[in-house]
Amino acid sequence: MKVLVLGGDGFLGSHMVDRLVVPGHEVTIFDRLPEGRLQRVVRHGDRIRVVRGEFGDTAELRAALAGQELIYHFISATTPGSSWEDPEAEIAGNLAPALAFLRLAAEAGVRKIAFASSGGTVYGPSGGEAPLTEASPTRPATPYGIGKLAVEGFLWHARERHGIACDIYRIGNAYGPRQPTRGSQGVIGIWFEKLRRGEAIELFGDGGVRDYVYVRDVAELMGYSLRDLGASDLFNVGTGRGISVVELAEILRSALPVDFEVIRHPRRGFDAPAVTLDSARILERHPRFAFTPLEKGLLATWEEERGEGP
Amino acid sequence: MKVLVLGGDGFLGSHMVDRLVVPGHEVTIFDRLPEGRLQRVVRHGDRIRVVRGEFGDTAELRAALAGQELIYHFISATTPGSSWEDPEAEIAGNLAPALAFLRLAAEAGVRKIAFASSGGTVYGPSGGEAPLTEASPTRPATPYGIGKLAVEGFLWHARERHGIACDIYRIGNAYGPRQPTRGSQGVIGIWFEKLRRGEAIELFGDGGVRDYVYVRDVAELMGYSLRDLGASDLFNVGTGRGISVVELAEILRSALPVDFEVIRHPRRGFDAPAVTLDSARILERHPRFAFTPLEKGLLATWEEERGEGP
Repeated sequence: MKVLVLGGDGFLGSHMVDRLVVPGHEVTIFDRLPEGRLQRVVRHGDRIRVVRGEFGDTAELRAALAGQELIYHFISATTPGSSWEDPEAEIAGNLAPALAFLRLAAEAGVRKIAFASSGGTVYGPSGGEAPLTEASPTRPATPYGIGKLAVEGFLWHARERHGIACDIYRIGNAYGPRQPTRGSQGVIGIWFEKLRRGEAIELFGDGGVRDYVYVRDVAELMGYSLRDLGASDLFNVGTGRGISVVELAEILRSALPVDFEVIRHPRRGFDAPAVTLDSARILERHPRFAFTPLEKGLLATWEEERGEGP
Repeated sequence: MKVLVLGGDGFLGSHMVDRLVVPGHEVTIFDRLPEGRLQRVVRHGDRIRVVRGEFGDTAELRAALAGQELIYHFISATTPGSSWEDPEAEIAGNLAPALAFLRLAAEAGVRKIAFASSGGTVYGPSGGEAPLTEASPTRPATPYGIGKLAVEGFLWHARERHGIACDIYRIGNAYGPRQPTRGSQGVIGIWFEKLRRGEAIELFGDGGVRDYVYVRDVAELMGYSLRDLGASDLFNVGTGRGISVVELAEILRSALPVDFEVIRHPRRGFDAPAVTLDSARILERHPRFAFTPLEKGLLATWEEERGEGP
């Protein structure tokens, strides 16, 4: 199959590329390559085709889309934290280019789009202990979540209007190898960088329960979209295990062969109160799949990042 | 109170202005005045202040916002029908200017925004006979509904970030005097124009159940936002009575002193399948209020538009 991965050299996108680079698939990535060259998928060399461009670059995107059947869309110009003070960037960086992309995809005859939405930000307060299902009410608190939900809507619209199928994956807090270590794109990546430097880790609030999911598990589950290019669906992708940042620090202490100090701060406005995801729907499609336990995924990430892993 | 009505010379906005032009309120309207002069609120003359501008005109909007306490936002650049083929207009015409407006409102020290959202388009399929409540799942099928829902989200965000309170009104299919008679902004306005001309009315599909609400009832209920500039809430505004287009044509035949023919067409893609709204939440705030019965509202509209009414 001819598959294009938007943001294919990013954190999630690169693991998707790992999953896709097998006999029978022709993989192209479209990425801005902010450092001017491949970072995360460099190992695949000539087995992938690379088109460099910004999400808003019509000519480059059109070139990447030509002849493609399935598109994985991982590009995001924002994070929940960055979007809080700059909601305009959500429109300029994510929404407007997503609509332009959908128009080009329709022109190119693309059959299906798989979109990385955000289980951590599109839902409202869970209202209880039970994990959130795909039918739970959505009420995003951040412009980032508002943007993700709007793109979901535009994908359903493109399905009706242009006949492009779509799978939407509402992903929990993905962590794992190659995670960014700066900015606000995931506490585990930031903490790991602190640990490598021998610095203390910082906790914001204590009630922020999250559903941490190993990035390779996400890529494995999203491989479902390869099976039927005519089908469309909506899936949560999370373990169903809710972990507070305080617990996460304790788990990290027991899982990793490293000691560290903890500094505690008040909660930030853009942190959603509690998110745990019920992923029964996608798990039905993967009957032999089991999520990587958090302790195991953290240790694997630590060892791999230190050059001890695969 | 100093109140600004965005789109104050429009259909809904003009009825809101009627409700607001009472002793004690200073009313300003901001409107593009597409025909170059006031159409619908011309009767109020010097009792209202008028600022002419497009929603995206920063200088004009800033001038209109200066010193205002409460803003009613009725502007929409699109309709569900127009948005189907042109989702980009949703971003350029509604979303981007809404964010610019929120920034200007925060600068101006506005205390509260009341927003006309759309009960007819933000919800997903109702999944049963029961009317939709504010807690029902949202899954807009049209770019228009996607845009309304995103603006709702940006209002909640502005509340957290800037401390601007907001009341969001998810309004059913408003009808009544001064309704546009062209385009896709409401079947009753279009039908009335046909009846005036002695032409047949056209039905698209038959199952499209809608919650038709008299526009003066909408304005009366939205007056709630005047009471407490610090409070924020989300309200449905509909009668709870679901009427199919076929029933609507029958009611029209019995309610109006006019005969007409009916032409039937297939359903259009942008028509939501069925919407009936549970408005218990706003009705709790108006204990003595009763919705105008559809038959009575239709007749009042007919007589008023023919110059026989008040």
